[in-house]
Amino acid sequence: MNEPVRKKILAANDEAARANREQFSQNGTLVLNLISSPGSGKTTLLAATAEQLHRRIRAAAIVGDVATELDAERLRESGLRAHQIVTGGSCHLDARMLAEALPWSGWPAVDLMFVENVGNLVCPSSYDLGEDFKVALVSTTEGHDKPFKYPAVFSRADVTLVTKIDLLPHLDFDLEAVRRQVATLNPAARVLEVSARTGEGLEAWLGLLTARLEAKRRVGAVAT
Amino acid sequence: MNEPVRKKILAANDEAARANREQFSQNGTLVLNLISSPGSGKTTLLAATAEQLHRRIRAAAIVGDVATELDAERLRESGLRAHQIVTGGSCHLDARMLAEALPWSGWPAVDLMFVENVGNLVCPSSYDLGEDFKVALVSTTEGHDKPFKYPAVFSRADVTLVTKIDLLPHLDFDLEAVRRQVATLNPAARVLEVSARTGEGLEAWLGLLTARLEAKRRVGAVAT
Repeated sequence: MNEPVRKKILAANDEAARANREQFSQNGTLVLNLISSPGSGKTTLLAATAEQLHRRIRAAAIVGDVATELDAERLRESGLRAHQIVTGGSCHLDARMLAEALPWSGWPAVDLMFVENVGNLVCPSSYDLGEDFKVALVSTTEGHDKPFKYPAVFSRADVTLVTKIDLLPHLDFDLEAVRRQVATLNPAARVLEVSARTGEGLEAWLGLLTARLEAKRRVGAVAT
Repeated sequence: MNEPVRKKILAANDEAARANREQFSQNGTLVLNLISSPGSGKTTLLAATAEQLHRRIRAAAIVGDVATELDAERLRESGLRAHQIVTGGSCHLDARMLAEALPWSGWPAVDLMFVENVGNLVCPSSYDLGEDFKVALVSTTEGHDKPFKYPAVFSRADVTLVTKIDLLPHLDFDLEAVRRQVATLNPAARVLEVSARTGEGLEAWLGLLTARLEAKRRVGAVAT
């Protein structure tokens, strides 16, 4: 794509993202944009998260994939309200796709909205969706070189989740190397380690979500 | 990207790919385009393959990444001639990038050229590089739903490699489900199971490479 075309597309997206952000703010909804490789465990983490959140927080998910509705089906089985966006060829969600999906997601009766982006460590990084923050996932099985190889995603994510830590005994994976790379790219980022399978680390993740949600509500209460 | 712009880009790429293919044919070089998610084990497989091929076949690799030269460095340590293409923002290689990289790769003294595409299951599928065939990799840790979720890659790959099979005892991974999905998308595709770590399955993979290389040489001998 040439640069002027790219700039025009991103400018239009930024405008749609601002409109989304405004809506989410008015409604007091905390919105996360989850980005990772295919198979890093986004859907499995959301299913495990939903089970823990059950009934305490009104949560929903909007899930992007190039093809199939498999992820939304899996999430609905875990009790989460979930809507699938099938992007056709596109390797990322954009702000307009998210806006169009909102009415199908249970919105506006949602306190916490998970947006699971298309499995891709490159394309989604440039497209603001109007989210509160991005969460990057990297699984222990992918190798510890990923943050430096995909700096755009990891430098923009407030939170990096190292997933599948139950497999660590079977792998040559250097957790400290990931922490160092993330700290270099984004010194303010939080790095959490989780296993959706064993539940290890989920408590810290849920703590982060509830703290952010409460902070957003406080800001909303001051503004109104 | 709008459809006319996309078509124009792909048409220009197809033309460059034809020129590459013509060059590779005249030189008798077998060229593979390896596509997978980040962290599926492309580089590790190539390093293990290079060790087995050592001195029997003149092999080289051209490696694409959004950032860093890590993969080419790893491959050179395994004894493979390797050149890194750093794509900047682009989520795939294209035929022109490959043509420009050739003089740095040991070309034309190369019988077998591995092109390791950017780690991405979406973007690389549309860009013909002039290769003989595409190889899709999916690791056991990514889950068995990937072929149907990323049909463009798996329907166009002559060979699908299921990697990291040494981890199977620790995972819920349905190998038959992957085989069924690939067979649906591309009935002629070969599916091989490998572990670069234990060496399991590498013999069949090397057998496939040498058979394809011999077939290409025979065609070349008939043509001249």
